[in-house]
Amino acid sequence: MSTQISTEQKQFWSPSVRALEPYVPGEQPKIQNLLKLNTNENPYPPSAAVVEAVQAVLQEDADVLRLYPDPDASALKQAIASQQQVDVSQVFVGNGSDEVLAHVFRAFFVKEKPILYPDISYSFYPVYSQFFGLKTQSIALNDAFEIVPEDYQLDNDGIIIANPNAPTGIALGLAEIEQILQANPHSVVVIDEAYVDFGAESAVALVAKYQNLVVCQTTSKSRSLAGLRVGFAIAQAHLISALEAVKNSFNSYPLDRFAIAVAVASFGDQAYFEQQCEKVIQSRELLTEGLTRLGFQVLPSKANFVFAQLPGREAAQLAQALREQGIIVRYFNKARIDQHLRITVGTDEQNQRLLDSLKAILA
Amino acid sequence: MSTQISTEQKQFWSPSVRALEPYVPGEQPKIQNLLKLNTNENPYPPSAAVVEAVQAVLQEDADVLRLYPDPDASALKQAIASQQQVDVSQVFVGNGSDEVLAHVFRAFFVKEKPILYPDISYSFYPVYSQFFGLKTQSIALNDAFEIVPEDYQLDNDGIIIANPNAPTGIALGLAEIEQILQANPHSVVVIDEAYVDFGAESAVALVAKYQNLVVCQTTSKSRSLAGLRVGFAIAQAHLISALEAVKNSFNSYPLDRFAIAVAVASFGDQAYFEQQCEKVIQSRELLTEGLTRLGFQVLPSKANFVFAQLPGREAAQLAQALREQGIIVRYFNKARIDQHLRITVGTDEQNQRLLDSLKAILA
Repeated sequence: MSTQISTEQKQFWSPSVRALEPYVPGEQPKIQNLLKLNTNENPYPPSAAVVEAVQAVLQEDADVLRLYPDPDASALKQAIASQQQVDVSQVFVGNGSDEVLAHVFRAFFVKEKPILYPDISYSFYPVYSQFFGLKTQSIALNDAFEIVPEDYQLDNDGIIIANPNAPTGIALGLAEIEQILQANPHSVVVIDEAYVDFGAESAVALVAKYQNLVVCQTTSKSRSLAGLRVGFAIAQAHLISALEAVKNSFNSYPLDRFAIAVAVASFGDQAYFEQQCEKVIQSRELLTEGLTRLGFQVLPSKANFVFAQLPGREAAQLAQALREQGIIVRYFNKARIDQHLRITVGTDEQNQRLLDSLKAILA
Repeated sequence: MSTQISTEQKQFWSPSVRALEPYVPGEQPKIQNLLKLNTNENPYPPSAAVVEAVQAVLQEDADVLRLYPDPDASALKQAIASQQQVDVSQVFVGNGSDEVLAHVFRAFFVKEKPILYPDISYSFYPVYSQFFGLKTQSIALNDAFEIVPEDYQLDNDGIIIANPNAPTGIALGLAEIEQILQANPHSVVVIDEAYVDFGAESAVALVAKYQNLVVCQTTSKSRSLAGLRVGFAIAQAHLISALEAVKNSFNSYPLDRFAIAVAVASFGDQAYFEQQCEKVIQSRELLTEGLTRLGFQVLPSKANFVFAQLPGREAAQLAQALREQGIIVRYFNKARIDQHLRITVGTDEQNQRLLDSLKAILA
């Protein structure tokens, strides 16, 4: 924000808003021939069924946009329930998984005791925590950048874990998730699975067993729909009810007609979805091998990105050198990870361009 | 919510969420040949430019949906700034004006003293107030259902007024708005102009003069885009900065690629916009005359709905009788207004169907 704001003008702000440090999304520059490997978007287009779904919205009735969408997005909840093999009462949908996560924090975490999350994880968690005035306690990853389930046994009123974790890409197995759930029967445990479809195990399989589990997912990564803004949560119905109460106290219609129709179409094309995820997984393995050959240490990723460092080279300088070659990767100027780069998995051709550029930079 | 939730399960809810009484939107039934005059949607389709804008999104790049939208929606802010003749730094956009209003409450109203609003107004205001834990003081409309500016001089930390008011349809003039602004120089005064384009004066003309004024508008009514979810606020840049801080602490990308493109197209077609608003205004006057001839008392509306009562007839029964004829209007079971019906202005043909049905019911 470049606007200069006087002390007198700040009187109008709510006091708690004056102190906010908002989330900063990865940049979206508009540069020709740019290779954008900084925001974990999918290199492949969404299902072709998506385009048909949009045409159908336009043709269903020339003026359907004049009418409010279904505030409950029932058709989408049904499509998600079918694909995830849960009951429709166990599905919550929102305007991207960021909005879903915000509602999750509001619904379950505004309590007395601290909320636990890893010291290195999705950087929106501390932002939500400040926004909702929560106490928090960050739990350090171990030296291998792994989450240690035993560490999540402190007194708490909630736990949120990204699995696979970001920006490390490392995933916990379901047995480790269960260990955390069992140690915290009185807290809601949120597993944020934005990247789960690229090879990790989903905790949706545990929803029937644990009344304190909320699993969040998104269509932005594995379904190539970042431009659409549709996220969802799966949990037992009593937890979904809390999310609905929060949502309906904030914004009744967060999903527009295109978002609902397109997401329904995406969930209807499971074969394409699985095929594209498999392509990304294979490309990730090739990228990991290529980076390793160049001397990088690459964490074992189950996501559509890799987290890598090159001993003896400043990560910030490497990121800058890549930028000069028209390639953007994500660099975090943050303790413990300021010598790593987070690199989104592109197509094999894009990944090769990255490897060639790195080779030239390191030569 | 039909889910049965046990006391044990309620432990997982944040305590303040257990008490929420969420907003209930007007129903969206799926009945053949239904005449839906209950949610103030526009009877005319949006600009034809809208369909072209959607096609352009699909054709711009087959896979553009895989990429995040512009988190700042700069193109839309620019389009709104041009149409409203303000600087782009004075524009905030969100997922429907409901989300914009939620952020307004969070940004400016979470303080010590009560927030003032009319006792009869948009029923989401008390919901937001409860959601954000605000003190409130409702100010009674006078016996003619008018807002009395002199009544808004109590000690407060914020004021919100719908203008035209809903569900009355009655509008204040700019001189009266200025009276409220001048009496409250240390409070943010929000003018919620969801219906302003149907004949009222917009307070956007006052934004340059008052550093404590926020004006909210929507594309849902006058631009026939309820199905899209785009609202906006106009205020001096220092207030917009607070809204951006809140938005970026909650959800970075509330507007998807279709929403941005379609709304930009709508703001680009000013001629169509003005023509459709004029048609609704003329139909409203005809509808008012027709209802008056049937014996209704109709409040003087500047909105795309009328608020009317028929002395000696129970409004709830009239609403039910209309429903049996396939016509839905909005009935509020609420003190002071439980003998009124809120009727959305349809096309002249639709309004005639309503009048004919009423005539038959009353015969």
